[in-house]
Amino acid sequence: MTSLDAATVDLLGVLAYGELMAFERMAADAQLAPTIEDKISLQTFANAEFGHFKAIREHLLAAGADPVEAMAPFTDAVDAFHDSTQPSDWYEGLIKAYVGDGMAADFYREVSKYVKDESARALVVASLADTGGAAFAVTHVKEAIAEDPSIAGRLALWARRLVGEAIIQAQQVAVERDALLQLLVGSGDLAGITRLFNTITERHTERMAALGLSA
Amino acid sequence: MTSLDAATVDLLGVLAYGELMAFERMAADAQLAPTIEDKISLQTFANAEFGHFKAIREHLLAAGADPVEAMAPFTDAVDAFHDSTQPSDWYEGLIKAYVGDGMAADFYREVSKYVKDESARALVVASLADTGGAAFAVTHVKEAIAEDPSIAGRLALWARRLVGEAIIQAQQVAVERDALLQLLVGSGDLAGITRLFNTITERHTERMAALGLSA
Repeated sequence: MTSLDAATVDLLGVLAYGELMAFERMAADAQLAPTIEDKISLQTFANAEFGHFKAIREHLLAAGADPVEAMAPFTDAVDAFHDSTQPSDWYEGLIKAYVGDGMAADFYREVSKYVKDESARALVVASLADTGGAAFAVTHVKEAIAEDPSIAGRLALWARRLVGEAIIQAQQVAVERDALLQLLVGSGDLAGITRLFNTITERHTERMAALGLSA
Repeated sequence: MTSLDAATVDLLGVLAYGELMAFERMAADAQLAPTIEDKISLQTFANAEFGHFKAIREHLLAAGADPVEAMAPFTDAVDAFHDSTQPSDWYEGLIKAYVGDGMAADFYREVSKYVKDESARALVVASLADTGGAAFAVTHVKEAIAEDPSIAGRLALWARRLVGEAIIQAQQVAVERDALLQLLVGSGDLAGITRLFNTITERHTERMAALGLSA
């Protein structure tokens, strides 16, 4: 038996699988890198995601929960997100790493406030720490747009598609996972939920502005 | 200026890029994993390769050598090997990880005997340590063949193709990189070179036998 409540196991499960797949897809997207330096940079960030995955997996094991069982309910949604958002070039890959991971991190950070278990909450927050990938993506995407402003429109549409696909999959997960939904809704803090979506939207707009793209 | 001779920089350069790409392709091949457990296993091995890459990169930096410059002469050959050996299923991926990495490790281990710098030699040997991937590949491939013996022929041909492509790329590197070739030939130890190829061939035959495949 696990010492964690169902909602926390769900949260750690979706976060673990999310980190595992973020790592896997980022490692694959590094094949698009224009230089060895760029490849090493992206692979270093990908590796940090794997480190986060390992930490969550160990936490679940230590709490007596089966990590694979905890991840299983979320594999379809996370896989579907990645399958529908395969970058066609290096810059789409960078934006996916920055915008996609950033939005997911904002969501998990807000949700973690409702987690009762203190060490689980600290783990969630720690595993969302930016590993330098954000600054790297911003610098490179801005440079590329400065060199060829005509790509900005395509990249802005790409970012919008990332958001759309993320919302579709998040909704599917919310419908299917009562415990996770109750973590939010059951808190009774409806103003908090409104704040959550406002915060995510605001931060997304900030990230797009940092990239030099319209949200 | 680097404190390492040209041949050692070459050796560390090709090894570093080899580890980086072994990591990258293994991480991508984990997309073929039939279960989450299998995916986690292969990603853990892939991650260990990245750890080896980082250690070699740091060694080059500490010796005053530019890692990217050291790797650059070998990127075409290593990339060509991987592009010509993309696994079409999970088992081809496992065999590539086991047979390909095993053969490369045998080669580097033998060559490292001619490296003068003691810490560089120790680093090469350490970065070739098996991280558990061999036993994992053997168990899973043998299970698959036991379940469906008809796949053994295809997998044996696949392993033969891996060896052929590796030899083609190794020859190209040998022709282009005098320093690396001199490390072997310049040793004057022609009996040693014969032993090297015998050793690699023998160990390859052992690996194929462990998989239950004819070499």
